[in-house]
Amino acid sequence: MELIIGNKNYSSWSLRAWFMLASFNVDFEETVLPLFTDEFRNKITALSPTGKVPALQDGDLQVWDSLAICEYVNDHYLNGSAWPHNSKSRAIARAICCEMHAGFTALRNEIPMNCRATRYVELSEQAQQDIARIDDLWAALRQEYKADGPWLFGALSIADAMYAPVVSRFKTYGIPLSAESQAYADHVLNSETMQTWYDAALQETLIVKEDEAGTDIVR
Amino acid sequence: MELIIGNKNYSSWSLRAWFMLASFNVDFEETVLPLFTDEFRNKITALSPTGKVPALQDGDLQVWDSLAICEYVNDHYLNGSAWPHNSKSRAIARAICCEMHAGFTALRNEIPMNCRATRYVELSEQAQQDIARIDDLWAALRQEYKADGPWLFGALSIADAMYAPVVSRFKTYGIPLSAESQAYADHVLNSETMQTWYDAALQETLIVKEDEAGTDIVR
Ligand SMILES: N[C@@H](CCC(=O)N[C@@H](CS)C(=O)NCC(=O)O)C(=O)O
Ligand SMILES: N[C@@H](CCC(=O)N[C@@H](CS)C(=O)NCC(=O)O)C(=O)O
Repeated sequence: MELIIGNKNYSSWSLRAWFMLASFNVDFEETVLPLFTDEFRNKITALSPTGKVPALQDGDLQVWDSLAICEYVNDHYLNGSAWPHNSKSRAIARAICCEMHAGFTALRNEIPMNCRATRYVELSEQAQQDIARIDDLWAALRQEYKADGPWLFGALSIADAMYAPVVSRFKTYGIPLSAESQAYADHVLNSETMQTWYDAALQETLIVKEDEAGTDIVR
Repeated sequence: MELIIGNKNYSSWSLRAWFMLASFNVDFEETVLPLFTDEFRNKITALSPTGKVPALQDGDLQVWDSLAICEYVNDHYLNGSAWPHNSKSRAIARAICCEMHAGFTALRNEIPMNCRATRYVELSEQAQQDIARIDDLWAALRQEYKADGPWLFGALSIADAMYAPVVSRFKTYGIPLSAESQAYADHVLNSETMQTWYDAALQETLIVKEDEAGTDIVR
């Protein structure tokens, strides 16, 4: 199975699918196509029907879109274990993942993923609301599921993969969070999966101007 | 089970969840909250954690987001039968639904759902690409699954619910489609579910300015 992704420093949608495969120990190879390059444009058409990453190639099956890749891997390789076992928790987990998939546009635009940077950005009202919503969500879930483990729903789930890029965004732009949400964010950042991703991201040198936001700060 | 939705004339995200419940004959009651009214603002907070419709109330469980509602209903009431049975088809079905959920922004902005109108809109390059992509997708799927039935994957599935609002948009703005895609669109428009929705939409009188695009035409 081959996962096609963008630059690790920038490609937030790629991180979701990669986090899913890596943290659930599913066997896969990765191909990195640097965004907005001729290499990307030349190779992506054969690999992804939308021309976007991430894309998964499993035998003759192509699955595109980060959430659909997570669902496919869960369905086909993990026997459904990547969603909470309990039907109500599963419904909530899917709701927060779908909310992330279709929403949070202001946050997405104003604080693009940029693993190696430390930046300051003046946030719009809407982006601040997006952040407050996520902070509330994480804190409430951690409160509810803390006895079951350190991830959003206790045990590791697709929800953690879908929110991993946001954890990284919050780190880059020094977004203050409630204590409970920060503890969750730290857990994700310190996980082996995220450390491996960051190690690779920090070795990349290509600059994608579109994803460079804010002013450098030294912490 | 109660489904909270917006105006039937305009609320495209609501139609997805409603189409799902209605076409799979799941028992539910509906509550219509007219968008951008005080009634909406006053009531929605207790019913939906994002303040948006659609939202599903099933006992003490609240499920928000159109795609998450479809997944929940499939999971909890339909024993998984609302996705294609075959694992590869199911992966593709989820991919096109997730693609719709996170994408097609130009199409979404330029030709808002407006069931009772017939309009002309000058489309941007990007919106034209969105339309071409959907046309290709529908035609290819209908080609592949035509022996199994008249829906996108032969049998009715969540994919039809997720694309139902687009069928309606294409009708309103007279978007020309390939013969195969048009036949699919007609099948959706003539379905009992869609007819019932339209009958109700045509009785609504409230105008939502934000969703009135283009110039009236007489056909
Ligand atoms: N909904 C898609 C979005 C994927 C997406 O927008 N990917 C970006 C990179 S993070 C991309 O491939 N951009 C390249 C392009 O549009 O040319 C998903 O979840 O996978
Ligand atoms: N991703 C959500 C989006 C829902 C959405 O944006 N709904 C609109 C109406 S179609 C809404 O409730 N707008 C009211 C508001 O934002 O105040 C879903 O799929 O359900």
